[in-house]
Amino acid sequence: MNQRIYFDNAATTPLDATVLEAMMPYLTEKFGNPSSIYSYGRESRLAIENARKSVAKILNAHPAEIFFTSGGTESSNTAICAAVRDLGCKHIITSPVEHHATLHTVENLYHRGEAALSYVKMLPDGHIDMEDLEQLLASCEEKSVVTLMHANNEIGNMMDIHAVGELCKKYNAIFHSDTVQTVGHFPFDLRNTPVHFITGAGHKFHGPKGVGILYINENVKIKPFIQGGGQERNMRAGTENLYGVVGFAKALEMATENYEKDSAHIRELKSYMMEELKKHIKGVSFNGDPLGRSLYTVVSASFPKTEKSEMILFNLDINNICASGGSACTSGADAGSHVIRAINNNPNQVTVRFSFSKQNTKEEIDMVVSKLKEMI
Amino acid sequence: MNQRIYFDNAATTPLDATVLEAMMPYLTEKFGNPSSIYSYGRESRLAIENARKSVAKILNAHPAEIFFTSGGTESSNTAICAAVRDLGCKHIITSPVEHHATLHTVENLYHRGEAALSYVKMLPDGHIDMEDLEQLLASCEEKSVVTLMHANNEIGNMMDIHAVGELCKKYNAIFHSDTVQTVGHFPFDLRNTPVHFITGAGHKFHGPKGVGILYINENVKIKPFIQGGGQERNMRAGTENLYGVVGFAKALEMATENYEKDSAHIRELKSYMMEELKKHIKGVSFNGDPLGRSLYTVVSASFPKTEKSEMILFNLDINNICASGGSACTSGADAGSHVIRAINNNPNQVTVRFSFSKQNTKEEIDMVVSKLKEMI
Ligand SMILES: Cc1ncc(COP(=O)(O)O)c(C=O)c1O
Ligand SMILES: Cc1ncc(COP(=O)(O)O)c(C=O)c1O
Repeated sequence: MNQRIYFDNAATTPLDATVLEAMMPYLTEKFGNPSSIYSYGRESRLAIENARKSVAKILNAHPAEIFFTSGGTESSNTAICAAVRDLGCKHIITSPVEHHATLHTVENLYHRGEAALSYVKMLPDGHIDMEDLEQLLASCEEKSVVTLMHANNEIGNMMDIHAVGELCKKYNAIFHSDTVQTVGHFPFDLRNTPVHFITGAGHKFHGPKGVGILYINENVKIKPFIQGGGQERNMRAGTENLYGVVGFAKALEMATENYEKDSAHIRELKSYMMEELKKHIKGVSFNGDPLGRSLYTVVSASFPKTEKSEMILFNLDINNICASGGSACTSGADAGSHVIRAINNNPNQVTVRFSFSKQNTKEEIDMVVSKLKEMI
Repeated sequence: MNQRIYFDNAATTPLDATVLEAMMPYLTEKFGNPSSIYSYGRESRLAIENARKSVAKILNAHPAEIFFTSGGTESSNTAICAAVRDLGCKHIITSPVEHHATLHTVENLYHRGEAALSYVKMLPDGHIDMEDLEQLLASCEEKSVVTLMHANNEIGNMMDIHAVGELCKKYNAIFHSDTVQTVGHFPFDLRNTPVHFITGAGHKFHGPKGVGILYINENVKIKPFIQGGGQERNMRAGTENLYGVVGFAKALEMATENYEKDSAHIRELKSYMMEELKKHIKGVSFNGDPLGRSLYTVVSASFPKTEKSEMILFNLDINNICASGGSACTSGADAGSHVIRAINNNPNQVTVRFSFSKQNTKEEIDMVVSKLKEMI
């Protein structure tokens, strides 16, 4: 069997060996409950507070604004529900290309009668229509919450978080941004970013699964989503995922240290992949705005639909190449991608997302493109 | 410094080396997203489904009734909120000695006007008053949810889950039991237990932190608490904590295999500790029903309050002995134990919880008792 080629890093990334090393003491002898008052527990608490400080420093936030959760999904659920239930938002503004962690949460609040719901218009290049967003905000009589993702996990489009934040400020709206695809991949400067909530998930940048963060701007006060013990300063109950938290911080530190180098490398892979595809595969096109405001990690390619191209994912798998049709969490359902449908509903195309990490190489791209050539 | 003596296993337990070993492949090369459709993701899915089957088999439940969560707290939040929001329960019956994961959740639902709230009376031995429970159930005109813990984490009292379940059945109430202190410590036979929801947390029985289960009886249909991707058959969104899930199952398997041996050993430690305390410490008393229906892992001892005894926890810590005043998650707050207050509000006592695991020894008890003698 061929060596596996993993081009699905937007779904999840391998845990970095250095990150695992940082976690190991907490998976072995340092198991004390961080909430216990004896010194053995306080050592664990210290590890968590150091992780929090490190994450806060990297994102230029205050440690008191960083909360550890079980992942990006829980973080988005927390922020959106709190905006409606604790911050008095009666109107949710979102987009049709959000992750299901956002879409299903807002739909539920809407169906339960807790808030009205509007979707901002999308432009053909996959960006949101800023004029439409302003119109929506201007026409809302009640307080709104805007939930729009920083980078789209399927097509890679990046939103101007500052521009949207300024609009929200102008209309006194609460602003949550799903930054699961950008935390650990881009520098953040939260003290100078007009946003109330952002989210992150460790496993998207070579950290552990099962742990994420929620940034809550110090000017908003919400209640916990998961209730119970006083962990996370009464904001997220449940015995802390100690090794997860330590691993999250370590992974973010490494991503930050190596950002220039890693992002340049991955950016090159992306443009090389696009060039090679254009060179070798007739009729290939790219979704979103891949050369504009876009993740450097993701290429969403569409191929003309033929009997052969419909089998692409299947054949890539047979060749031990990991790539995906849409986001991982929905690919099982095979209902097609709600993102692709929202921006380019061309039934005569087959879409594949390739997403890269620092561990990928040009040679792998050559191999994948030559396989694709054979397949199509 | 003395060797550490860890007598706080009800707060959390060390991860078993064999459990960590089972997790390691998933912390290294096997990182595929379980929701990805390619074979590499399917391998991860298989690991999760095998874990689910194993857990289900041990608890004598159906695999479709087992859902992995981030821990006991999330599981209880999910069950209780679903009973009110999805199953039409308009009345919550609980007890004043529940864990905060239950108490804060029901208080919140009550304050938001989603349900009425009643507390069952407690008997002086720390058990619930079954007659009062029946009266509460009988007097409710609307559908109720009963949430009562299987074993109390502070005083160790165990409830007759069958008797309470039968009462709930008689009055058509939904029954949730917080079994965080008993899953991994007692045999379960869920197919023959009249309960709708039970919960578990891996770290309470030498499994990993950050992972738990929620059992949902196949006859009840609820919506997810955390919304998003289709993970856990649409019941718990978020990329799965793959190693956590694998570790949870492995820890439960080991606990089950060694149940006879481990429980006999720990039970002996408990009775030895009680005897030694009685022998050496004047005025010691025990909370709850330690020789009756009680966890074999927990001894809750009260010492007459003196200037010296008020410093017990502090002095134990100095001697590198880990024990706790109440539950870990509240000990930081120093508000005293709501459990002790509810059953025995004697201001002239100082309470310490000692809780044991298979790794503890009689020699450790000798050392702790002799230290206590010096201290008091
Ligand atoms: C944009 C985006 N938001 C949210 C999530 C959810 O994160 P998690 O599955 O780690 O909870 C993901 C990935 O799955 C994502 O790509
Ligand atoms: C009885 C009981 N219920 C619930 C919990 C909460 O579990 P976790 O902190 O793992 O979420 C605990 C322990 O902390 C407990 O002892």
